[in-house]
Amino acid sequence: MVTKCHRNFIINRNVKGSAIANSNIAFVKYWGKADPHLFIPTRSSLSMTVDKLNTHTTVEFSKHYGKDIAYINGILQNGKPLLKIIRHLDNLRKYANTILKAKVVSNNNFPKGAGLASSASGFAALTVAGCAALGLELDEKELSILSRKGSGSSSRSIKGGYVHWFSGKRSEESYAHQLYDENYFDLRDVVAIVKPEEKKVSSRSGMAMSMETCPFYDSFVKMSSINIKKIKEGLAEKDFKKIGETIEFESFLLHSVMMTTKPPLVYWSPTTVRIINEIQSWREEGIEAYKTIDAGPNVHVITLPEYVREVEKRLNQIEGVINTIHNRPGGDTKAVSKHLF
Amino acid sequence: MVTKCHRNFIINRNVKGSAIANSNIAFVKYWGKADPHLFIPTRSSLSMTVDKLNTHTTVEFSKHYGKDIAYINGILQNGKPLLKIIRHLDNLRKYANTILKAKVVSNNNFPKGAGLASSASGFAALTVAGCAALGLELDEKELSILSRKGSGSSSRSIKGGYVHWFSGKRSEESYAHQLYDENYFDLRDVVAIVKPEEKKVSSRSGMAMSMETCPFYDSFVKMSSINIKKIKEGLAEKDFKKIGETIEFESFLLHSVMMTTKPPLVYWSPTTVRIINEIQSWREEGIEAYKTIDAGPNVHVITLPEYVREVEKRLNQIEGVINTIHNRPGGDTKAVSKHLF
Repeated sequence: MVTKCHRNFIINRNVKGSAIANSNIAFVKYWGKADPHLFIPTRSSLSMTVDKLNTHTTVEFSKHYGKDIAYINGILQNGKPLLKIIRHLDNLRKYANTILKAKVVSNNNFPKGAGLASSASGFAALTVAGCAALGLELDEKELSILSRKGSGSSSRSIKGGYVHWFSGKRSEESYAHQLYDENYFDLRDVVAIVKPEEKKVSSRSGMAMSMETCPFYDSFVKMSSINIKKIKEGLAEKDFKKIGETIEFESFLLHSVMMTTKPPLVYWSPTTVRIINEIQSWREEGIEAYKTIDAGPNVHVITLPEYVREVEKRLNQIEGVINTIHNRPGGDTKAVSKHLF
Repeated sequence: MVTKCHRNFIINRNVKGSAIANSNIAFVKYWGKADPHLFIPTRSSLSMTVDKLNTHTTVEFSKHYGKDIAYINGILQNGKPLLKIIRHLDNLRKYANTILKAKVVSNNNFPKGAGLASSASGFAALTVAGCAALGLELDEKELSILSRKGSGSSSRSIKGGYVHWFSGKRSEESYAHQLYDENYFDLRDVVAIVKPEEKKVSSRSGMAMSMETCPFYDSFVKMSSINIKKIKEGLAEKDFKKIGETIEFESFLLHSVMMTTKPPLVYWSPTTVRIINEIQSWREEGIEAYKTIDAGPNVHVITLPEYVREVEKRLNQIEGVINTIHNRPGGDTKAVSKHLF
């Protein structure tokens, strides 16, 4: 595997690049870094890339910029969010052997901080747009590793379809690998948007707290390989029940770890619980649907195409659900020619 | 320690006995039996006996009864609830060396099956009333052990105040011991009654499922001694923050175990979550209050006397809260002369 690093970066060439990346929903969850500097996770994870939650990003490196600036959804960034972006631009600059500062413009088609994994699509798009701008030709594994250093779950968004992120021991081993592309098995993710509020605790600091204080953390880590195996079997056999039950179990494992962290991380809202309880009774009626929840109140209902209409209808009738987003399996992060500035 | 077992039971004497027992709220939780026949728990627990949730029971053993009959809140029992009572009457009959059948009349002052631990006060009252009827003079340890064989948590309700139930290895070691009586430290338990519905899964079968399937179960068991130690220190120092934080942590541990059981046991309702989230913000305002939840949707808010008024007011303003019950520390289970029939 050869990386074509342009070590002698020519500062006069066109250094603008753009990319569109899809978010992903984890079936087996990522929560905690074994190496907080390199973003190597404590457990392997498995996700489906989704097609309706995406980020479009343009990056330009230029000697005209005295410092890095970044706009997300039209808002000039500063503080911690800007620092995370600068840190990732540094990762890209190291690869390309440049010190040029950059302008970043990034638009999500969904609200930031509402638990919709904007950092997954955001950092995947930034990575691919940055590489395009810098003329870096990395393979998928390298892109995944590089993206991971910006935001862990973004390593999974580099590829479409069903993706397995190996925890690995060293940085080069911790990357996401596509199990099946987006055309293999037509699962659907109907997201119930519950509340547009910003989270109280960021995932990043929450994870670190769980690792330090949660008495279930080690068992949680150990469960990852068992659950990944089950979902891989389920995908191979296209056995939705096996996949769904494991997805639901995994998200209860994750939220149990969060709740037993000190201080407790309760990401659920009353509506979240209402949906959890309703889905159980829907299944008794024959609607095959399973929930998963990330670090926010929204509920992702994983289902089959034939149940989508009914699931959407029922979710929208639940008190506290603002709207729903219907995702199909999404594709790879792609460099695009349409620039945002 | 001498047990005065009336091995030569005289069937013609007056064989009616009555008792009133208080329920208890567990600060460190009981969930699972190491020995399902003897009701020896997997972990030690610690509770406060409460004064406003009680059961008044009258038992009469007589040759006039062809079979055991029992009324709870005026309703003639049959099926599983009756079998549990008969099994416990058998425990009492074994002690007293009699084969007489019994009539039991029992009234709770709170709804059964709403997660208010009716079996704790119910079996403590049945034990003491039964002993009174049979003329058995048992000491507190023996009463606790005998009561435990009817319903685990009832072993804690034999004594008032703050009670530590030792898990023990053998039946004789698994009994509840009073740490402090009800006058030692004036904690309050404001119960928010959320829903009068019967639970879907009984505690008894839920526990067994958790032991079999929850990957966190072993860690949960191990945490008991740490949390009991903390609450004992908190009680010794009258350090409410230490007690409260441990109480809250323990109930998150319990509910995490329940949720990660297969199939998942989600006892929370939307209102439960609303209260959990509100209490966190009340503390930021200086109201010292901590929640604990048993196998039902109701929330017990443990607080100090000076906050009770405000806690009651706020709980009653929360959507979905039907009413509140304000408990002080309650006293021992007592034999009483007032019979119910």
